[in-house]
Amino acid sequence: MKRNGLILMIALCLCLALRAEEGMYPLSEIHKLDLEARGFAIASGELYNPGGVSLIDGIINLGGCTASFVSPDGLILTNYHCAFGAIQSLSTTDSDYLRDGFHAADCRAELPARRYTARLIESYRDVSREVLAAAGKRMSPDERGQAIEEKIKTMVAAVEKANPGRRAEVAEMFRGKSYVLFIYNNIKDVRLVYAPPRAIGEYGGEEDNWMWPRHTGDFAFMRAYVAPDGRSADYSPQNVPFRPKKYLAIAPQGVQAGDFVFALGYPGSTHRNDSSHYLAFEEEVRLPFAIEVWRWLIDLKGKMSRSDRATAIKLSSSLQGLWNNVKRSEGQLKGLKNLGLANKRRRQEEELRRFIGADPGRRKKYGDLFTRLDQSYEAMGRRARRDLTLSNLVSSRVSMMLGNAFAICEASFERIKADTRREAPYMDRNFDLTEKRMTQALRDYHEPAEKAVLGEMLRRAAALPRENEIAAVRALVGAGDPDKAIAAFLDKAFAATTLKNAAAVSALLKKTTAELRSLEDPLIQLAITLYPEYREMKDAEKRQKAVLDPLLARLVDARKEFLGTDFVPDANGTLRLTHGRVRGYSPADAVEMQPFTTLAGIAEKDAAHPGSENHGAPARFLELARSREHGGYAHPQLGDVPVAMLYDMDTTGGNSGSPVFNARGGLVGLNFDRVYEATINDFAWDQSYSRSIGVDIRFILWFLDKYSGATRLLTEMGANR
Amino acid sequence: MKRNGLILMIALCLCLALRAEEGMYPLSEIHKLDLEARGFAIASGELYNPGGVSLIDGIINLGGCTASFVSPDGLILTNYHCAFGAIQSLSTTDSDYLRDGFHAADCRAELPARRYTARLIESYRDVSREVLAAAGKRMSPDERGQAIEEKIKTMVAAVEKANPGRRAEVAEMFRGKSYVLFIYNNIKDVRLVYAPPRAIGEYGGEEDNWMWPRHTGDFAFMRAYVAPDGRSADYSPQNVPFRPKKYLAIAPQGVQAGDFVFALGYPGSTHRNDSSHYLAFEEEVRLPFAIEVWRWLIDLKGKMSRSDRATAIKLSSSLQGLWNNVKRSEGQLKGLKNLGLANKRRRQEEELRRFIGADPGRRKKYGDLFTRLDQSYEAMGRRARRDLTLSNLVSSRVSMMLGNAFAICEASFERIKADTRREAPYMDRNFDLTEKRMTQALRDYHEPAEKAVLGEMLRRAAALPRENEIAAVRALVGAGDPDKAIAAFLDKAFAATTLKNAAAVSALLKKTTAELRSLEDPLIQLAITLYPEYREMKDAEKRQKAVLDPLLARLVDARKEFLGTDFVPDANGTLRLTHGRVRGYSPADAVEMQPFTTLAGIAEKDAAHPGSENHGAPARFLELARSREHGGYAHPQLGDVPVAMLYDMDTTGGNSGSPVFNARGGLVGLNFDRVYEATINDFAWDQSYSRSIGVDIRFILWFLDKYSGATRLLTEMGANR
Repeated sequence: MKRNGLILMIALCLCLALRAEEGMYPLSEIHKLDLEARGFAIASGELYNPGGVSLIDGIINLGGCTASFVSPDGLILTNYHCAFGAIQSLSTTDSDYLRDGFHAADCRAELPARRYTARLIESYRDVSREVLAAAGKRMSPDERGQAIEEKIKTMVAAVEKANPGRRAEVAEMFRGKSYVLFIYNNIKDVRLVYAPPRAIGEYGGEEDNWMWPRHTGDFAFMRAYVAPDGRSADYSPQNVPFRPKKYLAIAPQGVQAGDFVFALGYPGSTHRNDSSHYLAFEEEVRLPFAIEVWRWLIDLKGKMSRSDRATAIKLSSSLQGLWNNVKRSEGQLKGLKNLGLANKRRRQEEELRRFIGADPGRRKKYGDLFTRLDQSYEAMGRRARRDLTLSNLVSSRVSMMLGNAFAICEASFERIKADTRREAPYMDRNFDLTEKRMTQALRDYHEPAEKAVLGEMLRRAAALPRENEIAAVRALVGAGDPDKAIAAFLDKAFAATTLKNAAAVSALLKKTTAELRSLEDPLIQLAITLYPEYREMKDAEKRQKAVLDPLLARLVDARKEFLGTDFVPDANGTLRLTHGRVRGYSPADAVEMQPFTTLAGIAEKDAAHPGSENHGAPARFLELARSREHGGYAHPQLGDVPVAMLYDMDTTGGNSGSPVFNARGGLVGLNFDRVYEATINDFAWDQSYSRSIGVDIRFILWFLDKYSGATRLLTEMGANR
Repeated sequence: MKRNGLILMIALCLCLALRAEEGMYPLSEIHKLDLEARGFAIASGELYNPGGVSLIDGIINLGGCTASFVSPDGLILTNYHCAFGAIQSLSTTDSDYLRDGFHAADCRAELPARRYTARLIESYRDVSREVLAAAGKRMSPDERGQAIEEKIKTMVAAVEKANPGRRAEVAEMFRGKSYVLFIYNNIKDVRLVYAPPRAIGEYGGEEDNWMWPRHTGDFAFMRAYVAPDGRSADYSPQNVPFRPKKYLAIAPQGVQAGDFVFALGYPGSTHRNDSSHYLAFEEEVRLPFAIEVWRWLIDLKGKMSRSDRATAIKLSSSLQGLWNNVKRSEGQLKGLKNLGLANKRRRQEEELRRFIGADPGRRKKYGDLFTRLDQSYEAMGRRARRDLTLSNLVSSRVSMMLGNAFAICEASFERIKADTRREAPYMDRNFDLTEKRMTQALRDYHEPAEKAVLGEMLRRAAALPRENEIAAVRALVGAGDPDKAIAAFLDKAFAATTLKNAAAVSALLKKTTAELRSLEDPLIQLAITLYPEYREMKDAEKRQKAVLDPLLARLVDARKEFLGTDFVPDANGTLRLTHGRVRGYSPADAVEMQPFTTLAGIAEKDAAHPGSENHGAPARFLELARSREHGGYAHPQLGDVPVAMLYDMDTTGGNSGSPVFNARGGLVGLNFDRVYEATINDFAWDQSYSRSIGVDIRFILWFLDKYSGATRLLTEMGANR
């Protein structure tokens, strides 16, 4: 009995030690954590050191992804899928880097990735008090929302003026409650250094995406360049490699099952602190709507891509994004339904409501909370279908042509306002980027796809019921057959428009509304007639945010009172720390997922998917895998090179490319995805199914060494054998 | 080092002990096996004892499935899916046993399962010499084939005459090489005693079928009845429960992972000793053809089933069979392709060919073997598409109406021959059963389905290219639009035919060809015009078998010489022993399947498939599962009642319902399926993926006890708590 008791106690301790925890800790929370007790084997100053140099200084926000410096000369390691836009836009049928990969022999051969910027945190501070002080007590929600928005924009402008070449950003941590100002160094000359063939970097394609077991070599290298004086500058052949304050040390031995790991990164957004209304809206309205549109777009572009290689390259970036979105959203929808998340949260709110009702003081503070949340979401629900349709119609990610026309039109309305009153893309600090984004996107212009997409979106808009109609579309379609009217409009519009030309787009972005009105471009004309309805919708959205923000702030307060605990704020695109263990999971009764995949597994998947476009590793790679030339990169227990690994850290989109560290802060992998069950992470985290996926550093080194002979990179990282 | 060496040795021993072995051992081989060394803990006499009583005497061939006696009063345990035909034909919308299950309160409430017979082995002996002696050396293949067929039929007739009430059968063990005569007691009054609701007995439906993890409560009880004098008799209220020589003892404690298990059963057919030509034919021709037809039928009948419950019940049995076939065949096709089995066997044959070529004696014996195999399969390949189309057209499992018309026509040609020269269904000993099968099937007659199916099969036949055409179909269609001609024929035929009536079918089965010709039934007329082409095809098939049999016999001889080992004959519907271990498997890199599923897993699957027709366990069942009222039936390590289990025994179709024994011969489960990867077992067995699935005895007992309160059955089996 005694011995059993001891074993039980040890088991219990192990369980507790291994128990993973929800948590994407903001920088401001790190000093509160007992790092040693949590499993870290580095001093907190090595991890985070506002005065000096720490790991944080090696972490990059790479256009929404995460990346890190891995050499003193600004070499950047990130995911293949994060570098995909660069690889794709540099690829042609002649230099097909998608098919063949890319490997710059020396610095001169590194190619500019024009749409990329690398942001490094320089400093940050809490500005909640200043921001909230802008909102007067007697203000209407509209006024309050606008006052806060303007206050933030003014602060940002002032900081950027005082720190030339830097970018400032105010992040809302808890909605309507707390705000942090970040100052970033914003490096604008980023170049592609190395990418494996797409068949490795995206191995498994949309079929394996969001799935385990996974065998994707999802890594690529870029490099940050700056002007010779060290300051951020646009691309120039005179620029020199950036020398970061900190770069990460490779830990070529990797990790084992059960090992402690941590990661730093820029998770985009989660909604764990939102109310049940939000979850119900996602489940019932937004996700089904979005999935249906994306599936249609995938079907169309997939078919077109099969016609020729040039089309396939043009549409590949958009298709990749669509697949990624649709699979994540389907996983989320399934998770919301299966776990009954909205109902679960509703039941928690019921308990909270009872708690509030039980005390007069609480009733006074929070008594109206749920009634007002109900009202706000009801109003949103009534407008939802039309608003979603209208947003899709004018989005350049759906129809690039009408989207650009619309942005040109919106610019003419926004640019005449004071800078801090404009919508963000049209503020002086962002306008160049907006223009760049629009003109660069034209490289992928594909007329048949554009025409088909805009046609379909117009048909959908025209089919809205009378009470939800979009007047501008109704006017375009007239009283006759909508299909015929739309077809006629498309023929005319695509023949007459100047928007296919990048220089014309740039010029149009500077025109006044009156000048635009005088043009005979049917797409511009449609955009102008759509604008008032769009403006009305945006204003309603802002009004709702202004109403919701203080409600959600009070909801967090009430929950804190009820549960007697602190919460970690939802992800919001700011730097976060997460930690956990290398660990498999059981997705279903009698199924156990092991935490490492192997080279042998790639050969196995290839054999199991003959002729598959998603599972066709290069022949030379398969030979190497089969030859078992592991070159010292093998996992000792597996007897093979590990390709991908699982861990129970808390991540979401934006954590793509996050460095995965061992307890001592050595780089052991590169986060790139979550398992299907964990797509629901954005709404709820659970240690039983929340697993993220990283590519193992041993695979990256093995591949560079054996497949690519990339001695230059290995030497630069100090990982040469 | 020493300690490591010891551990290594122990691990090695365990590995060897756990290594599973291919093998479905015929009765005649059992005495050669070292049972103890293989893990059995019973004496060979308990397993198999020709003079006395052994486990063999408790095993039943239940219309192609396996079953076993589990009480002294003839209580039979088998799979739900084996009893399905009875449950379905006894179900009506009022007494919906499919939906509700069936539970006879006492013997009088047990319902006759009219199409069922229970066969028990009485004796067997090797008759290879006698059979092969019938074939003279100078005979042509035609003559030889016919001589052997007649010899077998004559032997069977003589044995059945000498043993009234018994059935005899000569099984071909190795093709063209060895033959065994079995004498069976053939019990004709079998009744349904107990069935769980279909939502349990078929839990997971076609979605989970051939899959692991599995949660199907695939068990049912029947009972054998005989005349008061103990002899087999047709159903009569005067009949009494049969008292078997042997019934199996329940082992309510079940088994654990790693435990030794064995099974007895009637595996249907495997093709492991066939040549590469057979595998290539399956992969390239037969499987793709069959899958395509079945998918079409499933689509049609699935849609029709959704219209109303009465239709759903009528089509359910056919749909169940189609789903089962299509999924198995798709698994096999995938396995053939992925494993490259035909090529692998071709390479083995290349080696064998070199071995033969290296010695003049072998060249003389086997030199022509492969050339002649090539020729035979080439001829078959040329005819294949037309033959498969014609066979489908006249099969009553595709179009019941034309199938029955065709059987009536064939009967008129066959019944005028001497009994031993007839096709088996028309021999006196089988004719009653043939008639019963045809008339009973009419209970599921559904005119819209019948019309649609026959129409489609005729359209497909009419679409054959000129050189492969079926003349009778060409004549029916004429020169005009085939669709119109077929539609007109169907309208006329289904209005005029008498074949929808069981009494009419019985009467027609006794008519002469001349009498049939004079009838104005369009289906009978079509059958008569199809007959000559069908006859020609059947003759060609027999000729091919007569050519192939001696070739395959010599192939086995050559392989034995080459490899210096004996082979186990392919499964052929005769009783076989197989053994192995309870054991999970890894279907893919980083995925481990555990060998037991649980009640909790059912609740989990239900939650994961809201609204699914395949995953909807009864609400009361889910409550019970969640209440964790395990009543002593739990698996101690799992802490839950195990539902299904995996083991590495060698099984195939026909092993359904096979009792699974622990090492001491206690009943621990009921075999019912294989995992998807093991659908390929029919062509090749491999210990890495060949796993079969059984329902755990603990689940059966728990369900009888807690869900059904079936005290009578538990007491009768001596399994009451």
